[in-house]
Amino acid sequence: MAHVSTALDVSEAFRFVDLAGVLCNGMIGATIARGRRFDLVGMIVLGIVSGLAGGALRDIMLNVGQPVALTDPAYLVTAIVGVLIALVFRIEGRRWRWPLLIADALALGCWAATGTFKAQVVGLGWLPSLLLGVVTAVGGGMVRDICIGQVPAVLGGNTLYATAAAAASGAMLLVPVQSRLTWGMAAGIVIGGGLTLLARRLGWSLP
Amino acid sequence: MAHVSTALDVSEAFRFVDLAGVLCNGMIGATIARGRRFDLVGMIVLGIVSGLAGGALRDIMLNVGQPVALTDPAYLVTAIVGVLIALVFRIEGRRWRWPLLIADALALGCWAATGTFKAQVVGLGWLPSLLLGVVTAVGGGMVRDICIGQVPAVLGGNTLYATAAAAASGAMLLVPVQSRLTWGMAAGIVIGGGLTLLARRLGWSLP
Amino acid sequence: MAHVSTALDVSEAFRFVDLAGVLCNGMIGATIARGRRFDLVGMIVLGIVSGLAGGALRDIMLNVGQPVALTDPAYLVTAIVGVLIALVFRIEGRRWRWPLLIADALALGCWAATGTFKAQVVGLGWLPSLLLGVVTAVGGGMVRDICIGQVPAVLGGNTLYATAAAAASGAMLLVPVQSRLTWGMAAGIVIGGGLTLLARRLGWSLP
Repeated sequence: MAHVSTALDVSEAFRFVDLAGVLCNGMIGATIARGRRFDLVGMIVLGIVSGLAGGALRDIMLNVGQPVALTDPAYLVTAIVGVLIALVFRIEGRRWRWPLLIADALALGCWAATGTFKAQVVGLGWLPSLLLGVVTAVGGGMVRDICIGQVPAVLGGNTLYATAAAAASGAMLLVPVQSRLTWGMAAGIVIGGGLTLLARRLGWSLP
Repeated sequence: MAHVSTALDVSEAFRFVDLAGVLCNGMIGATIARGRRFDLVGMIVLGIVSGLAGGALRDIMLNVGQPVALTDPAYLVTAIVGVLIALVFRIEGRRWRWPLLIADALALGCWAATGTFKAQVVGLGWLPSLLLGVVTAVGGGMVRDICIGQVPAVLGGNTLYATAAAAASGAMLLVPVQSRLTWGMAAGIVIGGGLTLLARRLGWSLP
Repeated sequence: MAHVSTALDVSEAFRFVDLAGVLCNGMIGATIARGRRFDLVGMIVLGIVSGLAGGALRDIMLNVGQPVALTDPAYLVTAIVGVLIALVFRIEGRRWRWPLLIADALALGCWAATGTFKAQVVGLGWLPSLLLGVVTAVGGGMVRDICIGQVPAVLGGNTLYATAAAAASGAMLLVPVQSRLTWGMAAGIVIGGGLTLLARRLGWSLP
């Protein structure tokens, strides 16, 4: 019994990280839209794209039913709440900076691990699974950048965003199958989030 | 018997609005391509994208077989006929302006209602169904704008394009299930098309 | 027996052309990324997109399982090897020019014929099958151009890229069903590749 309730608590914790990432990406997308003087529709579209397009791309390629962003009501609602928060508060200040960076970094690890896990479940090899982990983690920001006419930061950014996602996906692949939903997710979040924050703090970049 | 033939007439009317929208979006896409000095291939690609990409995005996310734009021969043929019309006639003049605007506005309502209807059929909730209605209606223009390196007008346009699509989708959701293919479609077309035209005529915009 | 081994040899030959196209598109994508000072991640992303996005778009629209670029391990590995070659050697010189052009041209015909063949297998009509052939052949370059903020060359390029793909697809459609995997593929490669190279050599373009 104790074991079951711990497992539930753990998966609740991952869901919290997942949705916190959707929330803060909704806020980031809406803030970018406001910075470019888009209207309310533009804020909602960019918020939804930032928070949910990565997972939607993954689900479209995995071809298993509709994207979970559409079937699980929590995702769209959370992304839109993020947009509304950005609409009411100005989130550019110092106070918001590190909480947003941390939530975004942990979500990156969480999304990469989730994408790799789902790819393994449908039987893909390790390299496609790694790719889908990275797509899940960085796809939303990439589509958002393309929508606003910018070259995606992930292609030539100066921090290790995609590399951290690949590391989180790799951690998931190294964990034995039966522990992936517990230790695999935890390792992905810690490694992906840790690398992202370290790279940002220390200014690491790829050649 | 009379009832059946009326129902057929009604669904024929919706199909006419649907294909009229594809035709006029094929013309619009091709005209934009010519304005940028693209070649014939560019005109065909932009015409097809303008007229059919919204519905294709919807069908890809709903994950039910191939996009109807590929399985129903009328769609591709109609989009290409629109391109050919734009190739032969110059459609920039005054004479073309209001007929094109009206066909485009009615099609926006028709496409939004159709997208929401199909999302409800596969069992999605009201919020994802609303989103898919809007994607169906504005997705083609959005992908077209991205293809030509422009920020999609829908993000910061000065008319209520996406809002009108959301209103048409909402109307479809409020109609009882058994009347959706008749009154739901009619309400979507009238409300979506009416709002679009009113907003354009009166210069309404979102904050 | 002789007949069987010939058939195997032929399909091996087509696979060689297919993967040679992935390899050289991986090299082209990575070279473009380096020209824009993207980092290693940018080179890998653009290489994979150039080599595999066209087929992935086709498979997503055909909606038959996961894209073959994910299920067949050879594709991702080959694209990444192309990126690594471009990383180690500078491939801009004269020596590389014609081998790359020829491999790219033959792959264009091969991909167009493959896309049309697969569309016919799921029962699509000739016009959608032709469209999917062209999407398979030019989709990767198109998505790559959009990613780097350029209007896709295929919309207003000065050579017959998409036209050659359409010709290869048309050739596949004209070959009797039972010969498509042999003569259809061969005709697509010869006609698509030949037209592309002729157009490049002679400077042909569409009005």
